Amino acid sequence: MKETRNIYLTNIPLKEAQETYINRIEFSNFYQSIEEIPVVSALGRVSVGAVFAERSSPNYNGAAMDGIAVIAEKTYGATETRPVELKKENDFVYINTGGCIKEPFNAVIMIEDIVILDDETVKIHEAARPWQHIRPIGEDIVAGELIISANHRIRPVDIGALLAGKIVKVKVLPLPRVGLIPTGSEIVDVSDELENGKIIESNTSMFAAMLQEYNGIPKRYPVVKDDFEKIKEGILLALEENDVVVINAGSSAGSRDFTVDVLREIGEVIIHGVATKPGKPVILAIVRGKPVVGIPGYPVSAYFTMEFFIKPLIAKYNKQVMTSPTTVKATLSRRIVSSLKHEEYVRMKMGKVGNKLIATPLERGAGVAMSLVRADGVLIIPQQLEGYDGGTVVDIQLMKPMEEIQETLVSIGSHDLVIDLLGNQIHETNSLLFLSSAHVGSLGGIMAMKKKECHLAPIHLMDTKTGEYNISYVRQYSKGESMALIKFVGRSQGLMVKKGNPKKIKGIADLAREEIHFVNRQRGAGTRILLDYYLNDLGIEPDAVQGYEREMTTHMAVAVAVSGGTADCGLGVYSAATTMGLDFIPIAWEDYDLLIPQAFLEDSRVLQLLEVMKSDAFVNHVNRLGGYNTESIGKVVLI
Amino acid sequence: MKETRNIYLTNIPLKEAQETYINRIEFSNFYQSIEEIPVVSALGRVSVGAVFAERSSPNYNGAAMDGIAVIAEKTYGATETRPVELKKENDFVYINTGGCIKEPFNAVIMIEDIVILDDETVKIHEAARPWQHIRPIGEDIVAGELIISANHRIRPVDIGALLAGKIVKVKVLPLPRVGLIPTGSEIVDVSDELENGKIIESNTSMFAAMLQEYNGIPKRYPVVKDDFEKIKEGILLALEENDVVVINAGSSAGSRDFTVDVLREIGEVIIHGVATKPGKPVILAIVRGKPVVGIPGYPVSAYFTMEFFIKPLIAKYNKQVMTSPTTVKATLSRRIVSSLKHEEYVRMKMGKVGNKLIATPLERGAGVAMSLVRADGVLIIPQQLEGYDGGTVVDIQLMKPMEEIQETLVSIGSHDLVIDLLGNQIHETNSLLFLSSAHVGSLGGIMAMKKKECHLAPIHLMDTKTGEYNISYVRQYSKGESMALIKFVGRSQGLMVKKGNPKKIKGIADLAREEIHFVNRQRGAGTRILLDYYLNDLGIEPDAVQGYEREMTTHMAVAVAVSGGTADCGLGVYSAATTMGLDFIPIAWEDYDLLIPQAFLEDSRVLQLLEVMKSDAFVNHVNRLGGYNTESIGKVVLI
Repeated sequence: MKETRNIYLTNIPLKEAQETYINRIEFSNFYQSIEEIPVVSALGRVSVGAVFAERSSPNYNGAAMDGIAVIAEKTYGATETRPVELKKENDFVYINTGGCIKEPFNAVIMIEDIVILDDETVKIHEAARPWQHIRPIGEDIVAGELIISANHRIRPVDIGALLAGKIVKVKVLPLPRVGLIPTGSEIVDVSDELENGKIIESNTSMFAAMLQEYNGIPKRYPVVKDDFEKIKEGILLALEENDVVVINAGSSAGSRDFTVDVLREIGEVIIHGVATKPGKPVILAIVRGKPVVGIPGYPVSAYFTMEFFIKPLIAKYNKQVMTSPTTVKATLSRRIVSSLKHEEYVRMKMGKVGNKLIATPLERGAGVAMSLVRADGVLIIPQQLEGYDGGTVVDIQLMKPMEEIQETLVSIGSHDLVIDLLGNQIHETNSLLFLSSAHVGSLGGIMAMKKKECHLAPIHLMDTKTGEYNISYVRQYSKGESMALIKFVGRSQGLMVKKGNPKKIKGIADLAREEIHFVNRQRGAGTRILLDYYLNDLGIEPDAVQGYEREMTTHMAVAVAVSGGTADCGLGVYSAATTMGLDFIPIAWEDYDLLIPQAFLEDSRVLQLLEVMKSDAFVNHVNRLGGYNTESIGKVVLI
Repeated sequence: MKETRNIYLTNIPLKEAQETYINRIEFSNFYQSIEEIPVVSALGRVSVGAVFAERSSPNYNGAAMDGIAVIAEKTYGATETRPVELKKENDFVYINTGGCIKEPFNAVIMIEDIVILDDETVKIHEAARPWQHIRPIGEDIVAGELIISANHRIRPVDIGALLAGKIVKVKVLPLPRVGLIPTGSEIVDVSDELENGKIIESNTSMFAAMLQEYNGIPKRYPVVKDDFEKIKEGILLALEENDVVVINAGSSAGSRDFTVDVLREIGEVIIHGVATKPGKPVILAIVRGKPVVGIPGYPVSAYFTMEFFIKPLIAKYNKQVMTSPTTVKATLSRRIVSSLKHEEYVRMKMGKVGNKLIATPLERGAGVAMSLVRADGVLIIPQQLEGYDGGTVVDIQLMKPMEEIQETLVSIGSHDLVIDLLGNQIHETNSLLFLSSAHVGSLGGIMAMKKKECHLAPIHLMDTKTGEYNISYVRQYSKGESMALIKFVGRSQGLMVKKGNPKKIKGIADLAREEIHFVNRQRGAGTRILLDYYLNDLGIEPDAVQGYEREMTTHMAVAVAVSGGTADCGLGVYSAATTMGLDFIPIAWEDYDLLIPQAFLEDSRVLQLLEVMKSDAFVNHVNRLGGYNTESIGKVVLI
């Protein structure tokens, strides 16, 4: 471990950091390079100078209609009652749309307006005005006219117009090249063996894809180990071949942070640390006149840091106005608390229920890449705010098109693998329909339903007096509202233990043993209510259970804790146990159903959901997982 | 010319045509192809099935902080006043963020919370909870978890998550291939000699670029002449190699329209003719189970037809929700009249003046590609409406980002090449600033200014009583408002005649000669007012001038008419004459200035404009054109 630790980061507001950094960078060298490329290959490229048309378009006077080309003066005097006869060659020639009008002809009469008398003669009933129905030279583009200005990003319509003006090649700016260097002794490639203690290098591939969207050219380098000299060498090499260098991980103030020291030695560190969450420990440096950015290792921090600093940089190299994502107003489904130390970027799930657009926060951790995958939008909480109350209307920056969000059925409640499978099957069947789910436990689902924030709430809540599932809870919490239950699956709940059951756990009673470490579910989860029921039944105090206070939010997380060795057992469903290769001690069967307002039962999206749920493909898939009972799947019970 | 002409097109509303056509196409064959590609190359590709994580991420329990890994139970009882000492190896090991937590260790204490006593011993003042500061297995992704569903378009964040779950390859849909066949005996390649009667083939290059944006793969074929067998052969060949075929031009009911007959022979024509303007004569056909679309030849019709029919088709092959362009509300600057026969797509220029977003129509012709290049947005006039009155607030579909429109200085008035050059120089100097101009003549500019629809109005209006330019008109039309003139250029106005002056025109008086065909400017143009002044002065009636009623809207259009032979002379500026290689008979010098409200003189965009206008680079460029006087350029005159 390094002796000296550089743990002090600044806390500069984002906007100030962006402006300070961009103002320190010298772009003029880059702007002096020019590439001359064919117009047909120039989509998305930025023009270096104005481009003027070489030739007019059209380049000749052409007929705008099918008909005959005439000498207008020879048609004068023609009327309905006193038609004029015209002779071919002397007075007219036949002509098609686009045909060339040659002297002495100077007008066109539409074919519908002539009467053919014989092969040589036609009759007209109206005089032609000079130049009528003629598409004149330059009607579209005039030689010498400005087609596109300098600094113009070429679009398809520009390509069409440039070619029409007989421009074959165009001078454009080069695309900025960005070198991507992953660092870290624990990082391995995705195709390597994944040993204990190793992490797959995924960030630079995400960066490369982001750069393609930003209109930059990414170049990924092999992983560089945590070594001062190697990092220095890697950066210097990448600087030779690129306009910008991004170096990933090792940017948190900590014992293995060589990056900032290397950058201080070979260049200048402008800023180290900004007031954003995630993304705080970014390093903004300049080396040999080029920007070098140290991006934090956690995937969510990495993503936002790219958006905060690399995206505007690339827009500046490309000389284009940076477009902001679409922002919409949505109602927060619950209170969100945020620190005053930084501006926070909270990933949100969104859904339209009735007329209201609802936004619900996802996991906040900087290490949870799946929060980016699931996010529909981002809520930015300014530094000076401590958060927002539930029900506040806020601005959300969209990460998915609004058209998709509109077509999303929103499910909030208890999580199970079958909900994910149902969502997939729905979207596989109809690629324009989406099911999104937020995992807050059964009671959380009932509360969300009460507040009209979702279409469906998956629940499994046992009435401890009667042993009946779901219906009593719904009656209690949704008095006066017409609700229904879509029967989904019976689930086998039990104790998940390591393969071989090394601690010989037989049932709930074993949880009282001091050497057994348990891992629980969060308050409001149906599984936790089930646990409490059995503990109460056996006269075991929660205090007596080691790990009762340790909470996970999904069955899979419980299974992973047991499989990973941080717990001896947890209560959960059979499918989670088998997925993680655990042994399973069955405790009870429970009903896992979807709560839904009766009003939505006729919604076409819900009808599609029911159809998918009852389909052979889906039912068979669920049965193959084991631990599920599908006898009542898709039945609707009015409450 | 063909004997029989198929001139009857249907007039089906667009939405109905789109739905009818898409419902006739069989997509299932296409959906059965699968490509398996590396995840790192999968940006923008659509998943064929759900993808589940192979491994958890992280794949081990790791330290979330730098510090020491401890056995939590050995730290119990530690308090501020009764610290606990821990021995290296037995009780703790040093660990860095991301380091692997191995048994028996089960918690991490931050380095800031320990006191180092010696190489072997540390002291702590607080007990550690089991699993504190540990990033557990699967905190981000759990093995077996669903990462992306089927039919999901892969984004950068998905690439990151898939790699983190140790997914190396992914099965995706192929991208739809679209063959592009230009037809027409008058069509030549851009690098060929452009003879009289020939048109450069530009549409298929525009289509190819549009297809890249739609996520299709374009393939352009060589031009096919207007010949039944050749067109048939071309379509059949393209069908072998593509999923969709687009055949361009020859789709209007007319004498050289073989396309629809070929399609009827080899397949089925579903629709021929829709109720849109432009784009009416589209052919929607199916041949050998694949869509073949006949797209009209005029560039604007071609563009819209691609948007109407090919874009949704590609979205359907890609199984993605089609996103609509952003729509904004804007105030119409003038009345727009439209036929009841069709839904019209009017290209609009837009600008923000004060708080109002103003929209002004561009040229309506289907052959004017430059209307697409200049357009900021599109106004859709429904079939059942005859248009809108000026001042109506309408929805405009944006064709440029709003961020650019906001940064645009709006100029409405009389056109001159120097305004285009000024706009280019401004944008070249500051790539985030734009000057847009609409050409409506000097009086049109004054009216637009009165209605607060522009920042600047270029004018050259002579007070015929005093000979003074601009100031009197401004005083008359802008009573009570604080206006100013930015002096721009003196311009030499005169008669443009063919090189060599074959008709020996000496001055305005020659316009009375019967054999001289004149071409005029539109009402309200300063040049027309100048002409009328001189005609009046010479006692010549407008009737006596052949072509007085023939109107063009810009100097260049007048020059092109003379150069193209459709007129003997016109009144216009020297620079337009020289650009078209014409001879020039000077008549008068006039002041061409920019009218501007005094309130805008301090606008930073106007200050940038003045700076550019007065710069040596710009002044020298203008002087080199000839026919301009730049002595007063950039001087501000308050009125």
